[in-house]
Amino acid sequence: MDKYDVIVMGGGPGGYLAAERLAHAGKKVALAEKSALGGTCLNVGCIPTKTLLNSAKLYVHAREGAKFGVSAENVRYDWKAMQAWKDEVVSKLVGAIGLTEKKLGVDVIAAEAKLLGPGRVQIGEKVYDTEHVIVATGSLPVMPPIPGCRGNPKVVDSTGLLSVPEMPKRLCVIGGGVIGVEFASLFSALGAEVEVVEMLDEIVPFMDREAAPILRRGLKSVTFNLGCKVEKIEGATVFYRKKDGSEAKSEADLVLMAVGRKPNVDGWGAKEAGLDVSPKGVAVDDRMRTNLPKVWAVGDVTGRSLLAHTAYRMAEVAAANIVDGEAAAARGEVLRWDAIPWAVYSIPEAAGIGLTQQEAERRGIEVKTSSVPLRVSGRFAAENGFAAPGTAKLIAEAATGRIIGVHIVGAYASETIWGASAVIEQELRVSDLRQLVFPHPTVSEAIREAAWAMKD
Amino acid sequence: MDKYDVIVMGGGPGGYLAAERLAHAGKKVALAEKSALGGTCLNVGCIPTKTLLNSAKLYVHAREGAKFGVSAENVRYDWKAMQAWKDEVVSKLVGAIGLTEKKLGVDVIAAEAKLLGPGRVQIGEKVYDTEHVIVATGSLPVMPPIPGCRGNPKVVDSTGLLSVPEMPKRLCVIGGGVIGVEFASLFSALGAEVEVVEMLDEIVPFMDREAAPILRRGLKSVTFNLGCKVEKIEGATVFYRKKDGSEAKSEADLVLMAVGRKPNVDGWGAKEAGLDVSPKGVAVDDRMRTNLPKVWAVGDVTGRSLLAHTAYRMAEVAAANIVDGEAAAARGEVLRWDAIPWAVYSIPEAAGIGLTQQEAERRGIEVKTSSVPLRVSGRFAAENGFAAPGTAKLIAEAATGRIIGVHIVGAYASETIWGASAVIEQELRVSDLRQLVFPHPTVSEAIREAAWAMKD
Repeated sequence: MDKYDVIVMGGGPGGYLAAERLAHAGKKVALAEKSALGGTCLNVGCIPTKTLLNSAKLYVHAREGAKFGVSAENVRYDWKAMQAWKDEVVSKLVGAIGLTEKKLGVDVIAAEAKLLGPGRVQIGEKVYDTEHVIVATGSLPVMPPIPGCRGNPKVVDSTGLLSVPEMPKRLCVIGGGVIGVEFASLFSALGAEVEVVEMLDEIVPFMDREAAPILRRGLKSVTFNLGCKVEKIEGATVFYRKKDGSEAKSEADLVLMAVGRKPNVDGWGAKEAGLDVSPKGVAVDDRMRTNLPKVWAVGDVTGRSLLAHTAYRMAEVAAANIVDGEAAAARGEVLRWDAIPWAVYSIPEAAGIGLTQQEAERRGIEVKTSSVPLRVSGRFAAENGFAAPGTAKLIAEAATGRIIGVHIVGAYASETIWGASAVIEQELRVSDLRQLVFPHPTVSEAIREAAWAMKD
Repeated sequence: MDKYDVIVMGGGPGGYLAAERLAHAGKKVALAEKSALGGTCLNVGCIPTKTLLNSAKLYVHAREGAKFGVSAENVRYDWKAMQAWKDEVVSKLVGAIGLTEKKLGVDVIAAEAKLLGPGRVQIGEKVYDTEHVIVATGSLPVMPPIPGCRGNPKVVDSTGLLSVPEMPKRLCVIGGGVIGVEFASLFSALGAEVEVVEMLDEIVPFMDREAAPILRRGLKSVTFNLGCKVEKIEGATVFYRKKDGSEAKSEADLVLMAVGRKPNVDGWGAKEAGLDVSPKGVAVDDRMRTNLPKVWAVGDVTGRSLLAHTAYRMAEVAAANIVDGEAAAARGEVLRWDAIPWAVYSIPEAAGIGLTQQEAERRGIEVKTSSVPLRVSGRFAAENGFAAPGTAKLIAEAATGRIIGVHIVGAYASETIWGASAVIEQELRVSDLRQLVFPHPTVSEAIREAAWAMKD
């Protein structure tokens, strides 16, 4: 029986990165993955959607270049070619992870893992001893108990939609969260008629309530039905009830079910092993420890911030704490939940970090805020026109001026937001941000403008 | 005779922002500008070039979309339409500055200003008393004494090239600095044959010597003649001598002279007023004070870091020191020269901040460095292909791990670099940067990867 220092259960972003960091630190590591390395994010999540969204952006830009002096005829996309490029990207990146693990000496075992208890994991048919276990089993799309939903070939989840062989003419998206909005943006950019049916009153619930409507209006060719509860699906027709009680329906050719994802807590021995687990995920502290000794959990299975980069950071925290124990935590190797950025890769993009104004108020923090339209940036206006939607909003603690939230809608948001991670992690005040020099002309300068626009 | 608190001489980025900040603080301010507000940057510099470069990028993307599943026929650009959009952008932004000044109560005086001495400025025919003077007279393109250069209608500076009525088929660019590289990129993207003749051994002299060649190779359709000294120009033919002593020539239809800019120190009374001035600029300290009491200088005229955003920051520093004196400096209102980012808006882009490896070594700082290709980012690969050039390089002080330089070549560099301003201003160490969470998938993540790739 082989004995490992660490067995990692699941090869998604949390799992594979934990394996890398631990192997790099000299640990003997096994990484169990029954399917392709890279997990949801790489195989059927972030990377494929962003690759397709990039093609869609090129398509839109090629069609809308006249204002900028660029024209073209017969602009078209080839869905199969888009898919082929997406598949090539995914397969190369999956291959790269495999090579990295190999180079670092990680034993990648292509089978399902089952937790037998602290220090014992079954992978495939074989049982292994290990000092530590990292659970990284990820999440699954939620398929809600709406009549006509299960077993209906016209209802797909995000994985199904990514590989749909033909472009639907009409798409109904159930759920206006990140996944719903990104797919709505993708398919509407490609010319499909897209309707979103969302139960809440606004899209992307974790966004600031001032920023979310700007994103929604930016998705100008998507029809949003907010505050609407889906009651049943027949074929590809979605029947829903509006807030005022009236009934309505969306007739489509395909329905995307995007009401959320749930931690994958079943089928791998969590309960039997005594892990503190619920449908909300495996409970962890800010060092990624579970209730069981030397059993750690990272990524979506924790149910906290279901984002690949959160999984990355969780993996690093777990690895550092496994390697260095208390010393790791002392040097900051803990999860800081309020300094995790997010991004929506729709056209236009949105991104943010820290608290929304509403969340700050819920926590009883007195805040001051400042919003500027992105067109304060000359580059934004030059590249998008003066009427394009976009905003940069800052939220600061009123008492100290410390910045606790940064929210952006518009071009480059996903790429500029990391600077706000530094701002929030370093607890910069508005006055500090004002002194930072931003290159000119950039869209990122709107963040600086927002700092200057804030009342002292 | 009107008496002002502050008279600002020159309405470019340094001048107009100083006027805004001071008026916002309650000062009575006059802003003298003989030409359009916005200075070189807005009228004939950053904004027009970036606007045209964006059109060029759309043109290139429309032509090269096949790999990503997007195709088009008869893709073309209309130089006049590109110009028209550029002119519209510039004129709207100039108008916006005028409105802002008006709203804040700044007296914009459309005439040339002349410094008579501390507290006295002549604007047009009228002499004004003022407590403070801010000199912001900007810079001018250098036209070197090369035979055949002056008075040659085939030799233009950047201002001339921006409004050239016809696209040249062949362009020779003298000078491989930022301006030369951006125009070379613009015109080669639009299909011109472009040759750059540069005296030094590499383009963009202030770039890290590891990054600059990557940018150069990224500009794949531009021919670079490095280490070549121009000896004369006849018509649009540039004769130069190579490093090995041999002679060569570049036959073009138009020649761009882009060997640099010089501070505008003549013709406005600097010497007569007793200002410490040389061809290198008006001497200032890190609070923008000159040798004369209550006479300040900001922007290109100081000869320090001829960038619009440096001018902005100088303007803020001068304004804060005028308003609050010593208290301003105490709260950080001084110029920190090593925390100023720069960007090259070519296709691909480049950006950086802080020290290059070479500059650090010149200063005797022992460093450790780390470089990763941008294709470590899944988004970069998805959007640019796996063979696209790009790099992220970090330079840290070996003794402390403190990051003192960040250098990027490739997509979004200009927009992601502001985060590095925060990193360098806050004196983050490599270990701190590793703990920052970046959204996935982004190109900015390559910066994080570089931090993780650095040897401890």
